[in-house]
Amino acid sequence: MGITLLSAEKIIQAAKEKCGEMNVKMNIAVVDAGANLVAFVRMDGAWLGSADIAVKKAKTARYFDFPTGEIGKLSQPGGSLFGIEHSNGGLISFPGGIPLKDGSGNVVGAIGVSGSTVEDDHAVAEAGVAALN
Amino acid sequence: MGITLLSAEKIIQAAKEKCGEMNVKMNIAVVDAGANLVAFVRMDGAWLGSADIAVKKAKTARYFDFPTGEIGKLSQPGGSLFGIEHSNGGLISFPGGIPLKDGSGNVVGAIGVSGSTVEDDHAVAEAGVAALN
Amino acid sequence: MGITLLSAEKIIQAAKEKCGEMNVKMNIAVVDAGANLVAFVRMDGAWLGSADIAVKKAKTARYFDFPTGEIGKLSQPGGSLFGIEHSNGGLISFPGGIPLKDGSGNVVGAIGVSGSTVEDDHAVAEAGVAALN
Amino acid sequence: MGITLLSAEKIIQAAKEKCGEMNVKMNIAVVDAGANLVAFVRMDGAWLGSADIAVKKAKTARYFDFPTGEIGKLSQPGGSLFGIEHSNGGLISFPGGIPLKDGSGNVVGAIGVSGSTVEDDHAVAEAGVAALN
Repeated sequence: MGITLLSAEKIIQAAKEKCGEMNVKMNIAVVDAGANLVAFVRMDGAWLGSADIAVKKAKTARYFDFPTGEIGKLSQPGGSLFGIEHSNGGLISFPGGIPLKDGSGNVVGAIGVSGSTVEDDHAVAEAGVAALN
Repeated sequence: MGITLLSAEKIIQAAKEKCGEMNVKMNIAVVDAGANLVAFVRMDGAWLGSADIAVKKAKTARYFDFPTGEIGKLSQPGGSLFGIEHSNGGLISFPGGIPLKDGSGNVVGAIGVSGSTVEDDHAVAEAGVAALN
Repeated sequence: MGITLLSAEKIIQAAKEKCGEMNVKMNIAVVDAGANLVAFVRMDGAWLGSADIAVKKAKTARYFDFPTGEIGKLSQPGGSLFGIEHSNGGLISFPGGIPLKDGSGNVVGAIGVSGSTVEDDHAVAEAGVAALN
Repeated sequence: MGITLLSAEKIIQAAKEKCGEMNVKMNIAVVDAGANLVAFVRMDGAWLGSADIAVKKAKTARYFDFPTGEIGKLSQPGGSLFGIEHSNGGLISFPGGIPLKDGSGNVVGAIGVSGSTVEDDHAVAEAGVAALN
C-alpha cells in the first residue's frame, strides 16, 4: 500500500523539525496509496480544528494526485470545480496537502499539514515530502 | 425504474470507449429514475476521489433533470441556487452529469463522469448518453 | 492497488452467472486493496437497499480481511466485538462479503453481495471469488 | 490539555514494542483530556478498519473515563446503557481503550488499540498506559 509506517514517521519527523525552524505548531497527517491514514501527530498548542483539516488535506492530495492548493485554484466561484469540497465526506482545497511519490514517480500516499498560514502549512508539507526520498 | 442493467452496461461501455479515444481515465456511474445507483466502474489509474464525484454527478443530474453544469451556473455566489450543494448529502454542480431520456423524452436515469477536465468529463458523459438510443 | 477493473468485471460477470443459475437478483460490489470501490452492478429488480449493503460488505471484508459472516459471529450481544458495526461509517457483519486474494495469498480487495438470503449472498460472492484465480 | 505529544509518542512507542513481543499488528491512537486526537499510527499490515476503531476506543475511554470494555458490559441488550454506541458519532464499547491518568489520578487522555483479539488489544493498551508514569 505504498507508504510504510517507518517512512511515514520519517516524513513526520522532518516536518516537525521544519516546524521548529519556523517556530510554528502543526497538525501533520500521512495517508497511504489507498488514502487511508498511516500516522498523525498534533504538536503541543497546535489548533484543535486543524487535526481534521490535516487529515482531509492528505486525503484530498491523494484523491486527485495534486497539491491541495492546485485544486483550490479551480474550485473558486466561477471556477470549473466550484463546490468540489462537498464530495468525499469533505475536501480541503487550500495549500498544505501534497502527494508523496516513489522514485519512479508513482503516487504512494500524501501528507497533509495544518496549523498556520497556508504558506507555512505548504512549506512544512514540502519538508515532509523531501524526507521520503 | 427506467434504466435496465443491460442499458447501463451499454452506456458505460460506450463511455469507456470514448475514454480510450480521448486517452483519459474516468469514474463512470449510472443511476436509475429513482436516482439509485445501477452500475459503476473506476478505470485503472483514475482518481480515487472521482468515484464519489461521479456518483454525485449522476444523482444530481437526475435529482433535477438537468446537466450538472446547468445547476452550477445558478449556484454561484449571488445566484438563485447558491449553496444547493449542501442538500441531498452533497451535490456536484459542475459538468459531467447528464440525464438519460427514453425515446419519448422521459427522464429514466442519469450518467455521471469524473476524472479529467470538466469538458472531458462532459464529453464522455455525452458518449454514454448517445449509447442509450 | 490490487484489483484491476478487468478483474473486477470478470468477478462480477461470474457472480451474475451464478445469480442466473440460482434465480436470484443481487447487488454486487468490488473494492480494491485500499477498500475503494472499483465496480458495482445492481441487477434488474434487485432490492434498492441492498446496494449500500453490498458496498459495505465489500468494504467490511477488506477492512478486516475476513468474510463478513465471521465478524458477525463475534459481534453478537455478549460477543467480543459487539457493536463493531458502529465504526467506519457503518459495517455489515452478516455473510455476503469475502476478501479477494492473489496467487500468493495477499488480500487485493473484496467482493460484497446483497439481495437474497445471506446464504445465497455468500454463495454468489464465492462464485465471484472463484473467478479471480 | 494533559497529554503532550512527547508523552503520546512515548506511549505509542511502548505499545509498539509490546506488539513486537506479542507478534501482533495494531492501530494505536492517543487522545488528550479534550478527547481530541494527539497521535496515531497504523503498523504495516494492520487491519485498515481498525484505524477508526482505535480512534473511537480512545475517544470512548476519555468520554466516560472508563476502559471501553466496562462500557460494553452495560451496553448489552437489556443493559442500562443499551445502544450508547449510537452517540458521539459512534462509540466502540469492547476492550482496547483505556483512560490515561497523571500521578494524582486525574484523567489526562486515553489510548485506543485495535488490530487483534480484544484481549490482545487491551494488553497493548495497558503497555501504553504503563509508559506514561
